[in-house]
Amino acid sequence: MINQENTPSVWKLPEPTLRRLPWYLAFVKLLKGKGEIYVSSTQIAKEINVDSSQVAKDLSFVNVSGKTRVGYEIETLIAVLEDFLGFTIQHKTFLFGVGSLGAALLQDSGLKQYGLEIVAGFDIRRELEGTTVNGIPVFHISEFPARQKTLDATIGIITVPVDQAQDVADHLVAEGVRALWNFTPCRIRVPENVVVQNTSIYAHLAVMFNRLGFINP
Amino acid sequence: MINQENTPSVWKLPEPTLRRLPWYLAFVKLLKGKGEIYVSSTQIAKEINVDSSQVAKDLSFVNVSGKTRVGYEIETLIAVLEDFLGFTIQHKTFLFGVGSLGAALLQDSGLKQYGLEIVAGFDIRRELEGTTVNGIPVFHISEFPARQKTLDATIGIITVPVDQAQDVADHLVAEGVRALWNFTPCRIRVPENVVVQNTSIYAHLAVMFNRLGFINP
Repeated sequence: MINQENTPSVWKLPEPTLRRLPWYLAFVKLLKGKGEIYVSSTQIAKEINVDSSQVAKDLSFVNVSGKTRVGYEIETLIAVLEDFLGFTIQHKTFLFGVGSLGAALLQDSGLKQYGLEIVAGFDIRRELEGTTVNGIPVFHISEFPARQKTLDATIGIITVPVDQAQDVADHLVAEGVRALWNFTPCRIRVPENVVVQNTSIYAHLAVMFNRLGFINP
Repeated sequence: MINQENTPSVWKLPEPTLRRLPWYLAFVKLLKGKGEIYVSSTQIAKEINVDSSQVAKDLSFVNVSGKTRVGYEIETLIAVLEDFLGFTIQHKTFLFGVGSLGAALLQDSGLKQYGLEIVAGFDIRRELEGTTVNGIPVFHISEFPARQKTLDATIGIITVPVDQAQDVADHLVAEGVRALWNFTPCRIRVPENVVVQNTSIYAHLAVMFNRLGFINP
């Protein structure tokens, strides 16, 4: 699911590191808001509940260096992390399936702050055609190829019912969408040069309920 | 973060299994909609892109048995899985931080189908007091202890800004909330008998952008 030919060095970054870096960023931005100038990896480690050596190792992937005793300059660290994580570029995105979860994601303006710009939603339901959610237009799915020609979205969010996920994924890939953010429980299959990120928020509920001890195995 | 005293056998269930079971459930429900009567672990494995022996192993944790050659009875498998995963019980939930992501989650009626019933939202902003989102009332945070006394929520969703996450978590735990679904990048600390599930959807963006090759390390 990862294109290993074009940019091999990129893939050396472990996924856990990539998931932790946004946590560090959030914490460091918070310190900036409090007027702090420097932050140490020990400070980050303590706040995020990660081992301090892990923080230093994670940050070693990023082009930033700390000063002995004072640590990293906060302003620089934020700029470098935001750039490194791709949050400073707006990635044009289409969302497929304007149901409950899909509409909720259209509502979440926070995504834009992280570089994800949803420019249109698509649905098979004719009654949604021409409506907007949070200012984002909703089109009938049949309009997707034409809209893709003019808007050239890089990313497709999939929030359709599970039985339509593979069809929609195939459709998106055929039209040149290069990354799929899949919120359905379907494990979609894509060519090697297409990126897939699966986010099953309902699966997290199962873990939480189980840990709560509601289940008697 | 897990209470190991009360129900030790529950924790034997590996988290990856718990995250896969909802995928199987979604697929099997889809088959039911198509009028199918039986499903084999091979069929599930093929659809979900998981190893067939893994599916059989995952399902061995659930109290359900397949028949040789025909597989699992779909109707039974759905009922057993939904029950096992805790989706058939409504878990009363409060949401803290009715910002962009918080309001989006209030909009997502899909959560209720999975057993999560958000009964109220709380925010520090006075102007949100008395409003509703998707029919769910929003209260000022100061009303939380009183509302908790009458509503007795088991779960708290945390969608506040990162610098308020720990304070809110402490507040919830003090009022008897037993599980926290944390959407902030803060790694909140809680007593051992409180369950925490972290869902950093923005961290998934970092992984996707990186894999897309936007980053030049």
